[in-house]
Amino acid sequence: MSSLYVIKIGGNIIDDPAQLVSFLKDFSKLEGLKILIHGGGKIATKLAKDLGIESELIEGRRVTDAESLKVVTMVYAGLVNKNIVAGLQKRNCNAIGLTGADGNMILATKRPLRKVLSFGEDLGEVIDYGFVGDLDDSSVDAEAIYKLLAAGFVPVFSAITHDGNGQLLNTNADTIASVIAVSMSAHYTTSLVYCFEKSGVLRDVDDEASVIKSIDPEQYKVLKKEGVIYSGMIPKLDNAFEAISKGLREVYIGKADALPELKDKTFGTRLKSEK
Amino acid sequence: MSSLYVIKIGGNIIDDPAQLVSFLKDFSKLEGLKILIHGGGKIATKLAKDLGIESELIEGRRVTDAESLKVVTMVYAGLVNKNIVAGLQKRNCNAIGLTGADGNMILATKRPLRKVLSFGEDLGEVIDYGFVGDLDDSSVDAEAIYKLLAAGFVPVFSAITHDGNGQLLNTNADTIASVIAVSMSAHYTTSLVYCFEKSGVLRDVDDEASVIKSIDPEQYKVLKKEGVIYSGMIPKLDNAFEAISKGLREVYIGKADALPELKDKTFGTRLKSEK
Repeated sequence: MSSLYVIKIGGNIIDDPAQLVSFLKDFSKLEGLKILIHGGGKIATKLAKDLGIESELIEGRRVTDAESLKVVTMVYAGLVNKNIVAGLQKRNCNAIGLTGADGNMILATKRPLRKVLSFGEDLGEVIDYGFVGDLDDSSVDAEAIYKLLAAGFVPVFSAITHDGNGQLLNTNADTIASVIAVSMSAHYTTSLVYCFEKSGVLRDVDDEASVIKSIDPEQYKVLKKEGVIYSGMIPKLDNAFEAISKGLREVYIGKADALPELKDKTFGTRLKSEK
Repeated sequence: MSSLYVIKIGGNIIDDPAQLVSFLKDFSKLEGLKILIHGGGKIATKLAKDLGIESELIEGRRVTDAESLKVVTMVYAGLVNKNIVAGLQKRNCNAIGLTGADGNMILATKRPLRKVLSFGEDLGEVIDYGFVGDLDDSSVDAEAIYKLLAAGFVPVFSAITHDGNGQLLNTNADTIASVIAVSMSAHYTTSLVYCFEKSGVLRDVDDEASVIKSIDPEQYKVLKKEGVIYSGMIPKLDNAFEAISKGLREVYIGKADALPELKDKTFGTRLKSEK
């Protein structure tokens, strides 16, 4: 099987023009098949503010009402996605910008209303996250993405999906990256790469030199038990190991500017199966 | 050769939700290979206004400064394009939304500065149209679009292109439709379809029943000489006949709600070569 990189970048890169240009250069140079997934950064928040649209947060997640959905669709799928595509094309990388609606590649389910429970008691209230899409293992049409890769395109996904019934949905970019990578594992030996603020999973959260270079599920259990891993990282790593258990070769977590190190497998922290 | 429809819709449809839904239904049902090109409508003008960005018009064309380009990229390539794609997917039409930057499919040239001449005298002033892209016969990568059609996708283009050097450009949607249709003529027997406000080219501009059903270049000369054709239509028809002379089978001009009549070749006015 050929190799495939599924690479996710977030707001820290998108919001910083110099970092973004540097990333686009490195991404273009990366050999082999690749897919990029990007979030939206602060541009959407700023545009919403300029338009007088209030962004509500519930448990750290933005509530996406109809007006907010318009904003994220404009910014993620339009402004950010198309500028990334143009920047990659400039560097001879044959990018094609997409949402999950395009080619029906990512079909999501609108997040259902959730009951508000207070100490187990149903308060009769519900939380409505609005136009937010949730994904599962059957959400991605790997065949459709495969066709684009086979035709020589480099898919670049923004964090917008659809419900198949005409409704666009705002969707977590980390999750999109993970479900795409797992789904593509049937066709390719797939590596999922999360670019984030730190150089990798750190033994000491204040020491960028303390990167743990490689972790397998057994080691992960021990590191968690020892309390070595910063609690904020645990959901990210749990998800990564779950993806690996579903057939992904490996997950890398590290800083975007180290991207060229992927080819030597020395980029950030490498999470891998026990095999 | 297989047949291909290249269909262009403008603001009159995009700005009217009921008309848009009706068009998406008819477009989805249209059998065979097809490409959709859409303009942006009034949403971009309204968003620019809400953001306090002034739209300057020179000779009827909007000047696209950096801020206006952001607005049209967000609205055309993001909001409008992705909602059209989601609406088509709902109707089992496997749409994929694109700009000219995606897959490097439409490479434009930024419109050069133009001297201001007054009665032939150079006044030493220049007009800068800003980030506007002009196209020529070599702008479209027919091979790239062919790959998408062959893979079963229905390309949906917004009126944004790029210069190949990282710069997105605002581009006239009628022109995009025409250069795509001409370029695709090498692969397919291609029909270009312009949907606009009127039922076709009218003998009497105030009488929607006075549609001239078919015009060839000889008849066009006579109609122009007789002053039958409304002067506002002349540039549109000149361009259409120029496209036909470059290998296009035919150009239709008519009202979107008559789209189902395409299959009987009775839609609006049919412009064709003498052959």
